[in-house]
Amino acid sequence: MKSIANLLFEIRILKDITRSGYTFLGSGTESIAEHSFVMAMICFVMARMETQIDREKLISMALVHDLAEARTGDLNYVHKRYCKSDEKKALGHLTDKIPFGRDMVDLVDEFNEGKTREACLARDADQISFIMELKKLSDTGAAGPERWLPIVMDRVQTGCGKQIVQTIMETSWDEWWADGYSE
Amino acid sequence: MKSIANLLFEIRILKDITRSGYTFLGSGTESIAEHSFVMAMICFVMARMETQIDREKLISMALVHDLAEARTGDLNYVHKRYCKSDEKKALGHLTDKIPFGRDMVDLVDEFNEGKTREACLARDADQISFIMELKKLSDTGAAGPERWLPIVMDRVQTGCGKQIVQTIMETSWDEWWADGYSE
Amino acid sequence: MKSIANLLFEIRILKDITRSGYTFLGSGTESIAEHSFVMAMICFVMARMETQIDREKLISMALVHDLAEARTGDLNYVHKRYCKSDEKKALGHLTDKIPFGRDMVDLVDEFNEGKTREACLARDADQISFIMELKKLSDTGAAGPERWLPIVMDRVQTGCGKQIVQTIMETSWDEWWADGYSE
Amino acid sequence: MKSIANLLFEIRILKDITRSGYTFLGSGTESIAEHSFVMAMICFVMARMETQIDREKLISMALVHDLAEARTGDLNYVHKRYCKSDEKKALGHLTDKIPFGRDMVDLVDEFNEGKTREACLARDADQISFIMELKKLSDTGAAGPERWLPIVMDRVQTGCGKQIVQTIMETSWDEWWADGYSE
Amino acid sequence: MKSIANLLFEIRILKDITRSGYTFLGSGTESIAEHSFVMAMICFVMARMETQIDREKLISMALVHDLAEARTGDLNYVHKRYCKSDEKKALGHLTDKIPFGRDMVDLVDEFNEGKTREACLARDADQISFIMELKKLSDTGAAGPERWLPIVMDRVQTGCGKQIVQTIMETSWDEWWADGYSE
Amino acid sequence: MKSIANLLFEIRILKDITRSGYTFLGSGTESIAEHSFVMAMICFVMARMETQIDREKLISMALVHDLAEARTGDLNYVHKRYCKSDEKKALGHLTDKIPFGRDMVDLVDEFNEGKTREACLARDADQISFIMELKKLSDTGAAGPERWLPIVMDRVQTGCGKQIVQTIMETSWDEWWADGYSE
Repeated sequence: MKSIANLLFEIRILKDITRSGYTFLGSGTESIAEHSFVMAMICFVMARMETQIDREKLISMALVHDLAEARTGDLNYVHKRYCKSDEKKALGHLTDKIPFGRDMVDLVDEFNEGKTREACLARDADQISFIMELKKLSDTGAAGPERWLPIVMDRVQTGCGKQIVQTIMETSWDEWWADGYSE
Repeated sequence: MKSIANLLFEIRILKDITRSGYTFLGSGTESIAEHSFVMAMICFVMARMETQIDREKLISMALVHDLAEARTGDLNYVHKRYCKSDEKKALGHLTDKIPFGRDMVDLVDEFNEGKTREACLARDADQISFIMELKKLSDTGAAGPERWLPIVMDRVQTGCGKQIVQTIMETSWDEWWADGYSE
Repeated sequence: MKSIANLLFEIRILKDITRSGYTFLGSGTESIAEHSFVMAMICFVMARMETQIDREKLISMALVHDLAEARTGDLNYVHKRYCKSDEKKALGHLTDKIPFGRDMVDLVDEFNEGKTREACLARDADQISFIMELKKLSDTGAAGPERWLPIVMDRVQTGCGKQIVQTIMETSWDEWWADGYSE
Repeated sequence: MKSIANLLFEIRILKDITRSGYTFLGSGTESIAEHSFVMAMICFVMARMETQIDREKLISMALVHDLAEARTGDLNYVHKRYCKSDEKKALGHLTDKIPFGRDMVDLVDEFNEGKTREACLARDADQISFIMELKKLSDTGAAGPERWLPIVMDRVQTGCGKQIVQTIMETSWDEWWADGYSE
Repeated sequence: MKSIANLLFEIRILKDITRSGYTFLGSGTESIAEHSFVMAMICFVMARMETQIDREKLISMALVHDLAEARTGDLNYVHKRYCKSDEKKALGHLTDKIPFGRDMVDLVDEFNEGKTREACLARDADQISFIMELKKLSDTGAAGPERWLPIVMDRVQTGCGKQIVQTIMETSWDEWWADGYSE
Repeated sequence: MKSIANLLFEIRILKDITRSGYTFLGSGTESIAEHSFVMAMICFVMARMETQIDREKLISMALVHDLAEARTGDLNYVHKRYCKSDEKKALGHLTDKIPFGRDMVDLVDEFNEGKTREACLARDADQISFIMELKKLSDTGAAGPERWLPIVMDRVQTGCGKQIVQTIMETSWDEWWADGYSE
């Protein structure tokens, strides 16, 4: 059981690790845990917009896709040009005493290979989570995000993902509560 | 589709809302998004420690259990004595234009009723997420958490939850990487 | 005397509670204590711009008007649609062992009823405090505040309040030190 | 009227200036606005524990006692050994176009001279505000505050102030809500 | 040796003291340690752009030029109108038990007098460090910095400094990694 | 000249990158710029405690030793087990258009090889900077640092470094100002 407690504390540290891309963007901040939550909810939504999806797999992929970053750190575009991270080794050590460790590795592998329907959607959800943050920063006055939005939008592959991105770009980040505001 | 963008931006704001209990504890901080992520991963683990569990339901419950707090705010123990929040109304407005909105309401209702096996486990995961934070704060020098730990531990109901709590209490928060440290 | 120490520690926690509206605005941050201070100083000024004002009452109203939020939390526009807070009960518990507790309740009641001259001015000071923050955020590059400024300005009722708002809108937030800057 | 807007924006910046003593203490943080609010509320309480007090004067002194720090900065014990701040000049410039500027200067002068009953109480409230913060930091695990508590306590002069300090030291910072906690 | 440990801990506190000018600017934040590092690196660069420079002196001046602020605090433009800081006394106490204390005082004196080639370059580096921060804030959406940029640029005196300023103003803060970005 | 501006902006980002080790320690925070400043000042001191030292080289090594982390990120003990960072490539790109780029690479190489007297001292200064932070955290109430202090102390190699470490461990972090405190 000790291995379960260690696994959970390792997962917990994703709350304390901020995503390094925002430093280079010059505005915004987000922990890996926060990113993973929003991405998992985008997958929750996708799983209901699409048919014949293994919902559990899609959502679980989002939850586990960045677990290895507890050990490798969050490498952004610049970092990746200079660092080779051995995610397989990190995931191996993270899961090797866990009875269901193989499950976790399989989910991450499927995500990284990006071949199954679920993996394609999850990979789009990863980008959509970032697009939403860029849109919010842009809506609230930051300069910089507007430059990266078209680049990140181009990464989205699935029809479902593209539909979501389009509607996000047409919607102000605070419309859900600010529209119809009355005193 | 506009309703989907609005739903996602509403979910996104859970990254910006901090849990009010830590102010009263006097140390620590956590967004609702971070709490929901850790809780969802505890459910992911529970779903594999137990048999005959609807895994998708268990994990999804964790993801959606606090969504209404985007509209109601995060009410802690003290707040609840003075505020009545209409979570049903909040969830209703959050989901009423969403094709699968009924699904989301059902998940939250099942969680709140706490009768099914999945709901019992998810409710324990909610407490375990808090126990892990108290344990970490206590391990790193905060005074206060040690007083609340037994109270929160007493809330845990399932055998699976109790097992996890026991092993968490026997494990230092940094053991996963600090044990076996060598230069 | 114990009740006095408890009252003061309860007041102290208003330093640690941030006003929830700024999360929804997308920029800025402010504790309830900071808001109450600025509002009290606006009342201090109003008390001297107007004649025949009970100055002590006006200033004291500003200081105590949000005390109940230690127990109810800070409910913003969205929250109020879904939460009913029992401010009377909160204030009752806050003051029931305090010899001058009745005084405090009376001040808050008068403020909430908004009928006396002092209450009208204090209520305007509450809005002006928010207008000043929106103005500063707007002056320093945030997008969003410019949308809310006319709405909040419309809430101001007294001639004195309106005069202050007009001059604030015509003044840059840093004019007090930046004008006449010389090397 | 422009001078009023400038005065209010100058007051507003006290929200953004943190008290420098906490850097040297090694824990805690507080804006001048937050400090002034808590001190004003201690004066509000003192004004009701004592008889024959000019309440408005006592509370107003707390509100204005640190206004000059917008221009001089917050000088702590160490700073004061090396910096001479001309508070009179700062207050002069802050108030010279304000019709009731003389009132403000008089309040600060009376506070600094510390001769009247109200000034003595306000000066004690200044220290009690700091004692409360040290007590809270000490209660929640910080090392350091316990060393400074007796020194700051010794500065308190009035009977009323001493009574308050004694009861604060006998009371845990969270007793107001944590005592009588029940699930 | 005790005096060496005390000196180093005094230097360490420059990490915890934020530069007060950013509060008045309304955006950005920087510790004195961070400012001194960037300024020292600008001097490192200048020492290689120019010939016949005492490199060690130039770089060391940057490192020590703000040491006295541990004792005097960081006084900005407004503060300096109302506070006289005795930097000589502060440096005297900082260095009086240090065998090489005289060296440190001499470096600061030479910097403040601004007569030698190295002092002129170091003084420009001080301004360039601020210009870089204003440029970054402006590039990322802050309003305010664009007003101060020409004023601070005017302070730069040396040919070398002017050349660096010109190229900084022509370069986006993120060009070093964002140009040539490709997926 | 464009390459100089890019170099300086790349150096500037070290202010925005926090050292990842503190997340795993559970308390404290520090930017790479802050760490580099303190380390450079320790080298400044060492350069004067020792004889026959190339002072400029020793101090410059401290300033440049972590420059590559702008591109590679700050890899802590855990990260290094799973990531191989190509510091040479990062430094190459950082310096390839800089006329004195070779100088910078040579300094970092000498530091990393740790063979010269200056490199040995600089490497000790790197560790001493961390020891000072652990000591401060421990002095102010954090639990955790006391476990790592002996491990980090063991890394110090030079006589000069060992002397400094010993006196730091015998000195409270606030002794420089708190000793001899008098009202």
